[in-house]
Parts: sequence; C-alpha cells; structure tokens
Amino acid sequence: MNIVLLSGGSGKRLWPLSNDVRSKQFIKIFKTETGEYESMVQRVYRQIKTVDADATVTIATSKTQVSAIHNQLGEDVGISVEPCRRDTFPAIALATAYLHDVQGIAGDESVVVCPVDPYVNDDYFEALKALGEQAAKGEANLVLMGIEPTYPSEKYGYIIPATKEPTSRVETFKEKPDVETAKSYIAQGALWNGGVFAYQLNYVLDKAHELIEFTDYADLFDKYETLTKISFDYAVVEKEPEIQVMRFAGEWKDLGTWNTLTEAMSEPTIGDSVLNDTCDHVNVINELNVPVVCMGLKNVIVSASPEGILVSDREQSSYIKPIVDKIEQQIMFAEKSWGSFRVIDVDESSLTIKVTLNPGHRMNYHSHQRRDEIWNVISGEGTVIVDGMEQPVKAGDVVTMQAGCRHTISAVTELKLIEVQLGEEISVHDKQKFELEA
Amino acid sequence: MNIVLLSGGSGKRLWPLSNDVRSKQFIKIFKTETGEYESMVQRVYRQIKTVDADATVTIATSKTQVSAIHNQLGEDVGISVEPCRRDTFPAIALATAYLHDVQGIAGDESVVVCPVDPYVNDDYFEALKALGEQAAKGEANLVLMGIEPTYPSEKYGYIIPATKEPTSRVETFKEKPDVETAKSYIAQGALWNGGVFAYQLNYVLDKAHELIEFTDYADLFDKYETLTKISFDYAVVEKEPEIQVMRFAGEWKDLGTWNTLTEAMSEPTIGDSVLNDTCDHVNVINELNVPVVCMGLKNVIVSASPEGILVSDREQSSYIKPIVDKIEQQIMFAEKSWGSFRVIDVDESSLTIKVTLNPGHRMNYHSHQRRDEIWNVISGEGTVIVDGMEQPVKAGDVVTMQAGCRHTISAVTELKLIEVQLGEEISVHDKQKFELEA
Repeated sequence: MNIVLLSGGSGKRLWPLSNDVRSKQFIKIFKTETGEYESMVQRVYRQIKTVDADATVTIATSKTQVSAIHNQLGEDVGISVEPCRRDTFPAIALATAYLHDVQGIAGDESVVVCPVDPYVNDDYFEALKALGEQAAKGEANLVLMGIEPTYPSEKYGYIIPATKEPTSRVETFKEKPDVETAKSYIAQGALWNGGVFAYQLNYVLDKAHELIEFTDYADLFDKYETLTKISFDYAVVEKEPEIQVMRFAGEWKDLGTWNTLTEAMSEPTIGDSVLNDTCDHVNVINELNVPVVCMGLKNVIVSASPEGILVSDREQSSYIKPIVDKIEQQIMFAEKSWGSFRVIDVDESSLTIKVTLNPGHRMNYHSHQRRDEIWNVISGEGTVIVDGMEQPVKAGDVVTMQAGCRHTISAVTELKLIEVQLGEEISVHDKQKFELEA
Repeated sequence: MNIVLLSGGSGKRLWPLSNDVRSKQFIKIFKTETGEYESMVQRVYRQIKTVDADATVTIATSKTQVSAIHNQLGEDVGISVEPCRRDTFPAIALATAYLHDVQGIAGDESVVVCPVDPYVNDDYFEALKALGEQAAKGEANLVLMGIEPTYPSEKYGYIIPATKEPTSRVETFKEKPDVETAKSYIAQGALWNGGVFAYQLNYVLDKAHELIEFTDYADLFDKYETLTKISFDYAVVEKEPEIQVMRFAGEWKDLGTWNTLTEAMSEPTIGDSVLNDTCDHVNVINELNVPVVCMGLKNVIVSASPEGILVSDREQSSYIKPIVDKIEQQIMFAEKSWGSFRVIDVDESSLTIKVTLNPGHRMNYHSHQRRDEIWNVISGEGTVIVDGMEQPVKAGDVVTMQAGCRHTISAVTELKLIEVQLGEEISVHDKQKFELEA
C-alpha cells in the first residue's frame, strides 16, 4: 500500500497545546498499551504499519513540520515537503510526483490519500487497503471512502452513492449542509466525505501535467510557490465522472476541537493533576511540572502548557480560535530538527531557554548580531565549535559566546543545556547561518 | 498609637499563592490608587499610617516571615520574632515585653492588638485608635472591639455586651455557635469577636509575669520554646472581669479563603488573562508570564503561580486544604532577606533558579557539599566572593563554583542571575553558612 498522509498546518484550535509552530498532530495525548503517550501522527503511523508492515508512507507537509515528523517517526518515513502552502491539489500533485520520481513507484500502482489526524481503529486502515485494491482494478479513476454518518453533521460534505452496495458509483456530491438538509441527505443514503480516496498514480500525475506545466518532481518543487491555490476536490474530484465510493462503517472521529480531542482520551487526565470528587466530566492535560488542582467543576477542560493555560466549558471550547488569535505571544516551546527548546525565563534584557539536543544531532552553525549567549551544559556529552575551535563538553561545562561569534553544539549522548541570551533586542530573527568547514 | 499586628503562620488555604513558605498576608493582590498592587500586610500598614502617622507598629510573627516583612514594609517596622509557634498568649506577652524593653514604651501606655489580615477601611483604624484611647482611661483592664454581625456566622466567637451603648461592659463570651444559635445571639445584641483588643502595657506584662517566670524580653525570648501553648482568649480574656467592648459597624472581612479573598478584589482578574463574554463571576489571579484563557465558566476561581494551578468552583474552594496537604511539592518561589528566588527548571541532576537580589543586600556566605553551581548574571551590578576572592560582576558575567567552595554575592543595583545547580542529590538542606572575614 502506498499511502499519502496530508499533514495540515498549525492552528490554535487546541491552544495552548497547538500554536503557530506546534501542530495538533504532534501532541502526545494517546496512551498506548505500554503506558507511553503517542501523538496523532504516531498513532496513525503505527496503525498503518500494523495493518500493512510493507506500506510506503509519505507525509505531505510543510517544512516547518519536518523536524517534528522525524523526531516522532524516525527517518524511514517519506516526506513530500511543500515549500509553501498551496491547498490540496498542488500538495497531492507534488506528493504524487515525489512517489513517482523520488520513491520510484510505478504509474499503475495505486495511491491512497488520507488526512493525518483521524482518530480511528485498525479497521479503518483495512478499509484504506481495500480502497487501494479497488483503485488498482481500474473500474474507476478515483475511489472515495464514504463514511456512514452517525448524526446529521453540518461539518462535512456528503457523497450520494448511486446504490446501497458496499462499492458504488458516486451519484453526486453535496456541500456542507445545515442540519435539516443533512437529515434529508442521510435519508437518501448519503455518506460523509472524509477526504479519503485512492487512485492509480498516473491518473493524478496526468491531471497535474494537464493543469500545471512542469517536467518532474524537482521542477514542480522549484515552481511550487507560483502555483494557484486550489483544492483537490474542486480541481479533480467534482469533475471526474469515473468515480466510486466504498462504504466505511467503523469508528471515525476527527480531532479538531478540544471537545472531540478530550472524548478520545482513554483517561480523563494527562500530567500532574488532582480532581476532587465533586468534579464531573472534567479533562486535564497538563504539560507543566507543577500540579493542576480542580474542585467542583462540571464539563470543563483544563490544559496547561509552556504557552499558557486554558480553562473552558466543554461546549465553549470550540470558539477558542478568535480569542487566542488576539493573543500576541512569544513561542515558548518548539521542536527542532536537532531536538527541542523551551523558554524558561523572560526578562527585560535576557531570555533563558532550556535546550535538549537529541543524540547524534547538532544545531546549525550560526551567530547572532545583537546578543551574547552562555551555554550551561546540565547533562550529557557533546562537542561545541566556537569560531572554528572545537572542544568536547559535558555536564557542568560553561561556554560563553559574544555577539557575532559563530557557534554550534552537537550531542553524543542526549545533551541538555541552559542557554542564557543577553541583549537589548533579542529576536529569533537575529540569526546568521554558516556552513561548517569539514 | 502602639499597635501589635499578629501575623499568623503560613497555610495552604490560598494555594497556589500561599504555601509552607509563603503566607497569604504577603501576596500582592490589592490594587492601590496608583495602579500598583499591595499585599494584606502592606495595605494594613499603609492604612494605620494614614490614620496615625506616628503609630508605633510592631508585627508579632515567626522568623520565617521577617524577610518578607522587611521587603514589603521596609526597616522602620518593629518585629517581635517568635522563636517558634506557641499560640497567642505567649506571642502577645513576648510582643508586649518587646514594646517595653526594646521599644521603650511606658507601662501606662495603651497597646492595641489585631490580626494582620483584616480587609477593612480607614474607619476600622479610627476604631482601633478609639480602642486604645478607651484602654488609656483605665475604666477596664481590656477593651475589645465588637463587630456588628452582618449574618449569623458560625466562624466567629460572640461577645454579649451588657448594654447597647457604643462602649459597654462585656456580659459574657460565646463560643463559635451553629447558625440557629448565632441567630439567637444576634437577637440578644451579640457582636463578633474579631480578636481585636486594647490594654495598658503593664496589664499584660503583669499577667505574663504571673503565668511565666522570666525577667525581661531577652529572657522570655530565650525560654520561649519551653512555654506552654495557650491562647490569649483562654489565658486572659475569658478570666478578666474588668472588660469592656466597643462596637464597630464598619466594613470588616477576614480574607482566609479564596471565596472571601476574591470578593475583596477590585477587579475580577490580576495578571495576564482573557475571559470570553460567556464567563460569569470568574476571578483569575495569574502570577505566571503566560496567559490564562477562560471560556464559558460560571462561579469559578482560577489561580496560577510557580507552585501550581487551581481551578475551583467558588463554593468548593473552601475545601482546598486537605487536597493540597496531600501534594508533596518542592518550593518553587520564596522571598528571602536579600530578595527572592524562583525555580525555573527541574531536571534529574540539575535545578535552575532565577535569583533577584535587592540593592545593597547579599546572600549568606555559604557552601554546598553535594552540588556545583554556576551563576549567570543577567542584569545589575554587584560583587561576588568565592573562597575569599572578591570581584565585581555585571550582566554577562559567569561565576562557577565547585562543591565545597564558599561563595556569596551582593547587589549594588538590583541584580538578577540564573543559577544552575548541578548534582545528584540537590537539597535546600545541603548548605553550610560561614562568617565573612571583614
């Protein structure tokens, strides 16, 4: 099975866990059988590999997510990096060209596309496999998954199948309706369109060439910024007469809001928390290392992260976006290609961060014009290079760097340090990168 | 006016703002006319000085509060330090001996005793003054304040006056009643006993000599630990026939719980917070530098501090103590004689704290057996002494100290530093203090 997972952009609907640099799909929120926590993307990847150990998984995403994907899934996963956001048709075209030109997938092989963030069971991935197999038959150019509705939702588009067979020709598509219209669609046998479909690789590659002038993957990548934003539904699906739908009746949730996310939690709380016995239907997700105490709350969601604290009525939580959009905030935590950092103190002329470098990784070689820095290594072993001078470091070592000096650090074992930044105008944009001489 | 403010022990009823080292009376929670925030003790002290600029104010407290008192009130305030807690009779006896022997107050001057934490207006302090003046007349040995009840409270003891006059002989005292009994007391004209009273200094000094064998203040201080715990009410008030009560009908609240504290806030929130328009009767006190967002909450109190986060229904918040008593927690913030510190990162073999030294102050000269330390000065100017070697420091300087080495830092201007502690068993108890050679 060749599967393309569309990994959407960052957003604030799950603030303070998600924000401009941290996407919901990377938040470790699901408890596994071993008691560890995994993220949406880790859960989906694990499930795919359970159903088909040989599946080729490619994640179509922006470059801001590449570090997080490698940190969470390792290096085996394919990534089709979108140089910028251009909606789903360019993204799927690019991923398809990537599969063909970089991964060497043959033109008649089928490809399954699905979002990276459904909360589903293994039967969903069995259904994806069946979708691919159906596409491989060539009875239709596109085979969609039609999800059996469980309620008349206004959130989804609907697919009207021609018959009630498990696999049917698509009669027509319907835009997101109001509840009454949704009820009438469902009475007609309509299915939810979850944005999941399969095709033979050449089909989308040909469509891409029809609509975009390019030679191969590298060329498409280079001119990606010039492409028009257009959705795959609009550019392809709605215009395609040879199109089938396969029914899926298993559990399917999209975890886009606090309300749906907390319903998918196997236990009511994650992290350090105490709920007294007068609490009812309360969820806590606490990423801080101090306790959250809840007393006498009903239908409340509490989440605390380095970015802030949300306390919301369950229903109200779906209206969070405009509120947090107004909050101007420094990024307090981020995953990087080499590990992660967290801001631990902000003062007038200084910023203190905790840096964790993963074993075998190093930062870019860089300098800052307007700030000095001090590294206090608190654990692990590694090597620093400062203005070309290399030296090993371990816990207890201190490295001071004046503004303008070039520096990097690499980790042999996991290495943690407290970085003190000193200057009047500290900014993430004050950074020049350099090549390291061999 | 000679006034003794009884400053009670620390407690967790206002967790996460108060805890084992931080008492509620030092939390800056009241907005002043200038827009600054002041604590209970600052508010009361300011109010006393407004009513009587020449008042002699002495705070009777334990040594753990001395630093916070000097930080918040300056050096002018008198402090009668209890070497350990021995209930109110020994505390008031010690404070009275302190007034006599250290402050030189004459035996026939009157002394007014009141708790440090009432939330009251200036008329309360006018009433205290009147109480002192009444005691000076010598009509009775003790003059109590009787607060006009506003509801049949179960929380207070009651004073039954002999007459309805503004000043009356006390007929009798009643223990904390149930609501029905309280109603019947109030129908009889009973008043709340707020633990406020005045006497001529010699009266309590004589009582102290009757009950405790001691020569003077220094002697009483030295044997304080051997004294029996006994309340002033039990030892003196309830046995005294020559006792009067003066009515007080002004506003009077004791701010012992989240519920009463938040009612005294002039604005619903303190600190970085956003409440959407579906919130109703919500208070937020946020001491962290990230926002608290509240949505759709009714009658909820939210408080976030370096120690933790409380989210509680308003009524339920009065049951907090047993819950937070169970939380075993490192102290994350403390005021010290020289300034304050805050824990900003906790890791397996390191602890990182931010230290603020007030101008002109210095830490004790000390060493640690089991940890190394690194000081990263982030602002201000001062002087460090490490193993007897003195050198000036400023922002950007780094000082490293191996375990065993003696060190201190003093601030010329306000000085802030990030202290990285490194060791396997980091403990506040791992500290030896030394005298600094002149």
